[in-house]
Formats: sequence, C-alpha cells, structure tokens
Amino acid sequence: MNQLTIVKIGGKIVENPEALNALLKDFSLIAGYKLLVHGGGRSATDMAEKLGIKSEMIEGRRVTDEETLKIVTMVYGGLVNKNIVALLQALKLDAIGLTGADMNSMLAAKRPATDIDYGYVGDIKKVNGSVLSELLHLNYIPVLSPITHDGEGQLLNTNADTIAGEVAKALTFDFNVRLIYCFEKRGVLKDEKDENSIIPCMDKELFSRYKDEGIIQGGMIPKLENAFGAIAAGVKEVIITRASELNNGTGTFIQ
Amino acid sequence: MNQLTIVKIGGKIVENPEALNALLKDFSLIAGYKLLVHGGGRSATDMAEKLGIKSEMIEGRRVTDEETLKIVTMVYGGLVNKNIVALLQALKLDAIGLTGADMNSMLAAKRPATDIDYGYVGDIKKVNGSVLSELLHLNYIPVLSPITHDGEGQLLNTNADTIAGEVAKALTFDFNVRLIYCFEKRGVLKDEKDENSIIPCMDKELFSRYKDEGIIQGGMIPKLENAFGAIAAGVKEVIITRASELNNGTGTFIQ
Repeated sequence: MNQLTIVKIGGKIVENPEALNALLKDFSLIAGYKLLVHGGGRSATDMAEKLGIKSEMIEGRRVTDEETLKIVTMVYGGLVNKNIVALLQALKLDAIGLTGADMNSMLAAKRPATDIDYGYVGDIKKVNGSVLSELLHLNYIPVLSPITHDGEGQLLNTNADTIAGEVAKALTFDFNVRLIYCFEKRGVLKDEKDENSIIPCMDKELFSRYKDEGIIQGGMIPKLENAFGAIAAGVKEVIITRASELNNGTGTFIQ
Repeated sequence: MNQLTIVKIGGKIVENPEALNALLKDFSLIAGYKLLVHGGGRSATDMAEKLGIKSEMIEGRRVTDEETLKIVTMVYGGLVNKNIVALLQALKLDAIGLTGADMNSMLAAKRPATDIDYGYVGDIKKVNGSVLSELLHLNYIPVLSPITHDGEGQLLNTNADTIAGEVAKALTFDFNVRLIYCFEKRGVLKDEKDENSIIPCMDKELFSRYKDEGIIQGGMIPKLENAFGAIAAGVKEVIITRASELNNGTGTFIQ
C-alpha cells in the first residue's frame, strides 16, 4: 500500500504567517501522499470579538450558536483554508480546500443537546474515504477545514483533531497512514514546565496511568483519545510534535 | 458534445435565503451538466461595515485593500460558497466549492495600478478548463466563488461576471455551453422603469447602438461585454434573466 501522511495543524500556527509558511514548506518536503487538516483557533474568537459576539468555550470546545457558525465558516472555511491552499499552490502542490459539504466528504450529525447544548457542533458520521482517496491518487493535496455538514443543508462546526483522526481511519483501506498532530510543544510532556520532558512513546496502558496520575490532562486527553482510536482502527503511527519539528523525527509516538 | 449550463448568480439572491433556496431548486432541475458561479454583493460590504472598514467602489468594482481582501475571502470564499454547497448537497447535487486557488482552477494577475489602484483585484489569466471538465464528468457540480490566485500565494478578488464568462469560454472545448446571467430584472430592459420592456434578442450591432443611445449603461455594459466575448469564443448562448425565471425561457438572448 502507498504511504499517506496526514498533518493536523492548529490555531497558533495558522495565525502566524511566518510559522505557517515554514510549516507548509516542511509539509511540502514530506514524501508520498499527503493531506492537511487545519483548525483555526483564536482567529475565529478574534473575529467574533470584533463583531461584538461572545465566544463560549466548554471543555475546550466552542459553543456554536448561529452567529458563531457563520464566523467559523467564514474564518476556517474561507480565510484560513483558502490562504493555505494559495500558499501550497505557490509551493507547487496542487491543493484543494474542502469542508465536509464539498464532495460530501465529511458527513456529521448535530450533537444532541443534553446538559450542555453545544449548538451547531457536528459529530462525524462518515468520512467519504473513497472521494479523498480519489483526489490523492489524482495528485491533489486535500486541505480540510473543521466544517462539516449534515447532508440536509446545515453546516456544522467539528473539532479539527477529531477530523484528522476520522480521516486517518477512513483512509486505512487504501493507504499506510501516518498521522501527525502538530501543536505548541515538542511532544506530550511529563512535566509541562520542562520542554525536554517529552514522553517518547506511549501505549494505551501508559496513557491510562498518566491520566490517573494527572500527568496528562485538559485538551491533551481528547487529542490522545483520537490518537488511540486511530491506532485501534488501523492507522500505523500517530505522532504528536511541534510544528517546527515536523520532519525532525522528534515528538511522542503513539502505538 | 454534451450540454453544459453555467448559471451566474449575484449578491441580491445570495443574501436572501428564500430566494436562494428557490434558485437552487430551479438550478437542480436543469438537465445535463451544470456549474454555478456566485458573487457576494452587499454581504461583504455589510461585513466590512460591521468591522469598521470602508468599502470603496469605482465603476461598480470594489477597491480591494488587504483588509477588504480578507473580508471577501471570508464572505465569498467561505460563508456564501459553503452555504450554497451545503444547500446543493441537500438537493442531492454533489457540489464542490472552489476558489481559483483550489486545484489551480483559475489563475489571475493582479491588476497593475494606473490612475486607479484597485488593490488586490485579479484579471483572469487562465481558467483550467480540463480540471473543471474532469469534475463535471465525475458528476460533481463546481460552485465557483469570485476569488482567484496568482500562483505565488496571493489570493485576488475577481468580478463574478467575468469569471462566469471566462469559465464558459474555457469549457467550449468539451461542451456545448449555455451561460445564464441572473440578476434583478427580467432581462435587459429598454426602459429601466418598465419591467416589460425586455429586449428579447441582442446582437453586437444592437448593443453598440443602444450603448450609444444611452439605453444601456452602467453595470450592464461590462456584463454584456462579457456575454459577447463569450459568444465570440464559441459559447452557444448567453441569457440574461431574473433568477426567479431561470427555467422559464424568458430574458434577453445574446447571440
């Protein structure tokens, strides 16, 4: 099977033109098939603020009312996505930016309101692996924004880490998939204050223990859960690393 | 050759959810291959106003400074484009929204500043007809937003009427192309105040005469110039009509 590398980048990189350029250059050097998933992070919060709309976050997830959905569609699906695509084109990578609505590539269901109503947040129902695989074989680089749809005309806001994980799983039928989560740290750290305390390898057992001990907490928990879910579904390798060290072979390897 | 219908819709329809839904339903009923081009009109101006950015228009064309480019990329390339794609998916049309950067579908050059500096406005250099044709043959419905790129990482704002005309021309190699420009009136009117004074047919000679006589003026002139340019390049038929009468066979026929 062919090798596919999926890289997920977050808000901090997307907001910094220099860091983004450097990351995209590194991305362009990856051999084999590749696909990019981006978040948008603070840029949507900033835009909401400018427009006088308050952003509510619960456990690191944005509550998406109608106005907030418009903003994330504009910022993530438009500004961030199209800038990345244009920059990749300049690097001679034939990129194509997609939301889940485009080519029906990612179908989601609006999360039912329980104690918490997340609003227009979508949980992935189906990634259309064959469409993405077709694009890859035609040598296009899919650039996925964290916007999905419900198939009935409604766009939805979906966590970019989740998208990266689900897309990785959906493409195992056709590729040896390697999934790289880029974030601000050099890997999963044992001691948050010590950049050199990278945990080099982690399996489910170690994850469980570190979670119990409070060493791993917050936003890292769902990220790692996505990673282990991907491994369980046939993804060969998940790496958590810093964007600037994308091709350095450093980071935390999940197996 | 296969029949292809290209429909261009403007800002007024895009801003009105009911009118947009009705238009997309009519669009879905068109037989044969089809492609949609949309503008964004006032929605970008409204967003700019909310953000405290002034929009400058010269001869019906927006002056696009850096901030305005961000707004049109967000609103046209994101919000408007992705909403249309999601609505078409709900109508079981497998739509894909594109800017010119996506798949390198529309390459443009930044318009050189002369007396007037339009800023980040792009004049089309090349529509990638083979990519669009490939998508159409795979039964995707391309939905084009009026954002192009220069191939060197810069997004550009391009007039949607021009895009519709250039895309129509670029697809004549593979299709019998019919191009329908939707706008607020039922066709090109002889008397602006009389909705029933539609000019049923127009050739270049009549256009020239009406232009000299001041019957045709303003934004209609570049629209018609695009239309005649398309006909000269092999497009079979250009129709100017009201969106709500898309399939009624009314309007002004350009030949």
